[in-house]
Amino acid sequence: MALALAIDLGGTKVEAALVDASGAIVPGSRARSATGAAAATDRTVLERALADVIAHCRALPEWGAVTAVGIGAAGPIDRTAGTISPINLPAAHGMPIVRLVARESGLDDVTLRLDGTCIALAEAWLGAAQGVANAIVFVVSTGVGGGIISDGRLIGGGSGNAGHVGQVVVTEIDGDAAASTVEQLASGPHIVAWAQRQGWAGTTGEDLAAAYRDGDAVAVAAVARSAHAIGVGLANAATLLDLELAVVGGGFSFVAEDFPERIEAAVRAASVNAYAARLRVVRAGLGGDAPLIGAAALVHRRDLL
Amino acid sequence: MALALAIDLGGTKVEAALVDASGAIVPGSRARSATGAAAATDRTVLERALADVIAHCRALPEWGAVTAVGIGAAGPIDRTAGTISPINLPAAHGMPIVRLVARESGLDDVTLRLDGTCIALAEAWLGAAQGVANAIVFVVSTGVGGGIISDGRLIGGGSGNAGHVGQVVVTEIDGDAAASTVEQLASGPHIVAWAQRQGWAGTTGEDLAAAYRDGDAVAVAAVARSAHAIGVGLANAATLLDLELAVVGGGFSFVAEDFPERIEAAVRAASVNAYAARLRVVRAGLGGDAPLIGAAALVHRRDLL
Repeated sequence: MALALAIDLGGTKVEAALVDASGAIVPGSRARSATGAAAATDRTVLERALADVIAHCRALPEWGAVTAVGIGAAGPIDRTAGTISPINLPAAHGMPIVRLVARESGLDDVTLRLDGTCIALAEAWLGAAQGVANAIVFVVSTGVGGGIISDGRLIGGGSGNAGHVGQVVVTEIDGDAAASTVEQLASGPHIVAWAQRQGWAGTTGEDLAAAYRDGDAVAVAAVARSAHAIGVGLANAATLLDLELAVVGGGFSFVAEDFPERIEAAVRAASVNAYAARLRVVRAGLGGDAPLIGAAALVHRRDLL
Repeated sequence: MALALAIDLGGTKVEAALVDASGAIVPGSRARSATGAAAATDRTVLERALADVIAHCRALPEWGAVTAVGIGAAGPIDRTAGTISPINLPAAHGMPIVRLVARESGLDDVTLRLDGTCIALAEAWLGAAQGVANAIVFVVSTGVGGGIISDGRLIGGGSGNAGHVGQVVVTEIDGDAAASTVEQLASGPHIVAWAQRQGWAGTTGEDLAAAYRDGDAVAVAAVARSAHAIGVGLANAATLLDLELAVVGGGFSFVAEDFPERIEAAVRAASVNAYAARLRVVRAGLGGDAPLIGAAALVHRRDLL
């Protein structure tokens, strides 16, 4: 059976694995290389990490069955040029990752997409969005990112950066768009900081989850604030794209058991059109493997591209 | 050469024409039937109007070359059920337009899409969005509507209602989403009413255009307000979809010669991501024939669907 080499390149680590056509990671094939803070200023750190995880995979007995490579990378990317310019890795800006990976792997067939869109592919392939032709999949953690399946296909966009629901403007705070986005109003760190400004004494998302369970008034307001901003952003996406389903994952999504229901209610309240108000919001079906599974979907599920 | 029967169903009229594969309307084939206020309460008015314009086309000598029908209709629609429920025509809610048109035309091949998305198809086929794989096309007049081409295809969405950029929330006025949309903040009637509340003495969009040309301070502020709201809405669309181009049409778009430039500047200001800030904004290339040409594109340009 044909295998994919799946690569996930994030702000602090590179991972790779071999993934079969059923979406299963070949046991023992997974390799991870932390790049840490050094990668931000030294491109060779990232290049070495990439070479290391690929070398690990090439040494596996299953390597002969690998036919192509899928890469999910932190954005922005340029899928036409095959380059990445991750915000948190200035030294890597313009890095020709497709060419590098082709060289290190010896494989010509290399597909690059944004990491958030790979998670959407994974959920569409094997997770909560299976069989749904119009869905947005997003992650709420340090940031808010995602990907969109529309009319049964992953939206790429001009340069491959579609899906950045975190940077959708949902209100206008002193006319400053950058302070008015879903991410600014809903991400874990921003909500924790907001709660602290209201006098809450905790320091982490886990603290906030505990306070929410205890019924702490500020924690409840903080969760409501996050769900509201996400809901307005999703209402905008559903209005533009006539979506059926939103899938929420990421560490901060566990801040409240009823987080999906709160978001769904916020979508309803912010939707002018009935078709947008119908958006269902559910939790992700996959966990930490989703980025690699999604990268593998770039090889195994080209019908979704 | 194969011809399309193109039908445009709006809130106050039904139009039909035969359109050839080059997008040209067959001379003398165009028929229009005003439905007026009566259609809102009496479905038979709309049914008769549809039958009349189709009968006109069937009587033409070119009818034998017609192979299929494309319908652009005021929304919302249900493209799977083949029904329409136009907001301004309560009596027509749930009307099985695809079945009705098939019966009246004797043709089985009938495709239904939202009117705004048909205009987008028309601009992608023969107008300002030719050859652009990622574009939003929108009209600013009494309302604000549109359609989206993404990765080279028209976005339909779950029920066929994608493209409603007018109902995107761009700020929050007293927590009321319905009062905070692009349409509420940017359409002709809303902007005229806003200017009047600032003490402006005119009554129409044409008056406002004249006042803008004369440098009237309120008129300039009113145009800026409209362009700003549209710009935030487009920035959101460009952020979600990584669009290359926005095409603006509609009567109110002529309120200011520099309306596209103002919108483009507002997109730049509201975009967090560089790929979204790059969105170009240009005027539409087609005029009043765009709805019929777009309906014909449902037949002649299936590669865009």
